[in-house]
Amino acid sequence: MYWHQATIQLKARPRGFHLVTNEIVSQVCELASVRVGILHLLLQHTSASLFLNENADPDVRADFAHWSDRAIPDGAGYFVHTLEGADDMPAHLKTGVLGVTVTLPISDGHLQLGTWQGIYLGEHRADAGSRKVVATLWGVLKSGEK
Amino acid sequence: MYWHQATIQLKARPRGFHLVTNEIVSQVCELASVRVGILHLLLQHTSASLFLNENADPDVRADFAHWSDRAIPDGAGYFVHTLEGADDMPAHLKTGVLGVTVTLPISDGHLQLGTWQGIYLGEHRADAGSRKVVATLWGVLKSGEK
Amino acid sequence: MYWHQATIQLKARPRGFHLVTNEIVSQVCELASVRVGILHLLLQHTSASLFLNENADPDVRADFAHWSDRAIPDGAGYFVHTLEGADDMPAHLKTGVLGVTVTLPISDGHLQLGTWQGIYLGEHRADAGSRKVVATLWGVLKSGEK
Repeated sequence: MYWHQATIQLKARPRGFHLVTNEIVSQVCELASVRVGILHLLLQHTSASLFLNENADPDVRADFAHWSDRAIPDGAGYFVHTLEGADDMPAHLKTGVLGVTVTLPISDGHLQLGTWQGIYLGEHRADAGSRKVVATLWGVLKSGEK
Repeated sequence: MYWHQATIQLKARPRGFHLVTNEIVSQVCELASVRVGILHLLLQHTSASLFLNENADPDVRADFAHWSDRAIPDGAGYFVHTLEGADDMPAHLKTGVLGVTVTLPISDGHLQLGTWQGIYLGEHRADAGSRKVVATLWGVLKSGEK
Repeated sequence: MYWHQATIQLKARPRGFHLVTNEIVSQVCELASVRVGILHLLLQHTSASLFLNENADPDVRADFAHWSDRAIPDGAGYFVHTLEGADDMPAHLKTGVLGVTVTLPISDGHLQLGTWQGIYLGEHRADAGSRKVVATLWGVLKSGEK
């Protein structure tokens, strides 16, 4: 069994939803040598999300912001955790709802995403820095079978 | 270590929430030979969901539709991704909120679901066809330990 | 490859959101001997959630209740699954939205959680008992490499 684990960085982004498939895959070149296996990604934060959604139309990412900012509004009067800003508690809630882990099958060196699937970063804070992802990969290598 | 990976099909269903545990398990007969392991399922779509919920009362599935159609309404005025129909952007959002991967422990050839747990397909489009799931299984076999 | 699987119990808690990282980790002492691997947790219920969120301020857990009780209200008039009480169908929906599985990387005997991440139990019923979690761990041991 082959194992690989590394922490990768996603560059800082503005509040909103961003397609990060290529930024992640390009930092996990080890997956090219895996015949069958799994890639697990953990975003190590509580005010940003990592999840799968539509990879083609940027309007979909915009609508994720339009909807989530209404469903979980900044500065709602019923929040008690308010010291870190009007966008902080909504960021924690969006993170809970959308999730921070993505687990994907690998076959013949490629992620087995559906045609329209990509990896989204939901950046829920206005002034966040870069975000960290622990990438763990396990499986059987193409050559031999360690 | 034993590995198995295959793409399975879920038959086309109407918009709504459907219990698909048996349809999935019957297509992954390899899990019967696993002593301890994991089954990972990835629904390769962005307008349908795969997740765990109550397996007994069809009213629960109906209420998932009742609630989610209110929380994420068709044709909301703030959507900008509207070209594919009034149910398309809500379908992407429901997919983001409910998820597309299910990861389950296997013990002695059986999924270790709780008594009341089953696998739900949330079909969020009105006229979708069959849906594809990549099933990946890894673990230790009952006989020997390859 | 090392495998470990066991069912652990989380003590009964009142309705609300609770930090259970230590209660879980203390019952999976096997992870201390893993050099690189994964811990998978399945909460075997459909009216409680297991997910990752902020580990420091109890107000964040309180606001998860404040928000989710508004987004998914007890006794909403459009529910048809009502026989098990006004908090039952909302509990199933919260479970669907927040999830019941947590999958975490292990490195050098420790979970690789972010600084502010902890494991939350969302207890969505008023009078629930203890909750069961199937913990499955796989990876490479520190000593030797079984």
